[in-house]
Amino acid sequence: MSEVDDIVIRPMYATDIQRGFLAAIAALKPCELTDEDAVEVFRKRMRQKIMTYVAIKEDRVIGTASLLIEPKFIHSGGVVGHIEDVAVHQGFQHHGLGGRLVKFILDVCRQHKCYKVILDCAEEVIPFYEKMGFHRWERAMRIDL
Amino acid sequence: MSEVDDIVIRPMYATDIQRGFLAAIAALKPCELTDEDAVEVFRKRMRQKIMTYVAIKEDRVIGTASLLIEPKFIHSGGVVGHIEDVAVHQGFQHHGLGGRLVKFILDVCRQHKCYKVILDCAEEVIPFYEKMGFHRWERAMRIDL
Repeated sequence: MSEVDDIVIRPMYATDIQRGFLAAIAALKPCELTDEDAVEVFRKRMRQKIMTYVAIKEDRVIGTASLLIEPKFIHSGGVVGHIEDVAVHQGFQHHGLGGRLVKFILDVCRQHKCYKVILDCAEEVIPFYEKMGFHRWERAMRIDL
Repeated sequence: MSEVDDIVIRPMYATDIQRGFLAAIAALKPCELTDEDAVEVFRKRMRQKIMTYVAIKEDRVIGTASLLIEPKFIHSGGVVGHIEDVAVHQGFQHHGLGGRLVKFILDVCRQHKCYKVILDCAEEVIPFYEKMGFHRWERAMRIDL
């Protein structure tokens, strides 16, 4: 748990869906899930050990970020962290919360002894991640099915 | 299962480690795991539903590719496929096996109703993935811990 001023970052619980989780993640992409469907997605993710974290202020979710931990055969069985879906509620952007979420996840990755942490991002947020210590690496490729 | 001539592509079993799995994946990066440690990594990946596929010829592993399925909150609870660690044993490269492994995984992604499939790759293999229908997307960023 990370607490600075009155913001707490911690693992998500299913009940955070009632604390405005979907409104926070909608900063990233429209999210038309009902609360019930979101609970089902949350459970599926938990079963796969996909970790979702939330930033809470006054009992409301104001930000989120997720982590997939991947044990590899290569790198002597090393572990890779994949950061996904870093989002800050529109009313709380530009106050450094995104950076705090990423730093929190990097600490979790250190606890899991990840040898590297990777993420895909748009060109315009590369400077943000460079400030956090990331460097440009490979090309992300995509196919729509 | 995909079978063309005498090559079969199928989900990996723990016993494939005795069929030369580590020698095949070593085409990607040195892999110093013992067979026992590799079984432990395989089990960890299974618990997280990380799917590893193998190409088998004459009861030996000659290629592999992996798939992480990620249920998202965004995109109305849509599912994303992440392709990882496509490797072909050095003695069997340049015969189209990499393409067959990727096509096999894309079929699995269609069965899981993934709305997109993504992967990170080095500049020199971009044309290979473009031929498979992928397009250049975001920038992969990396930090070493």
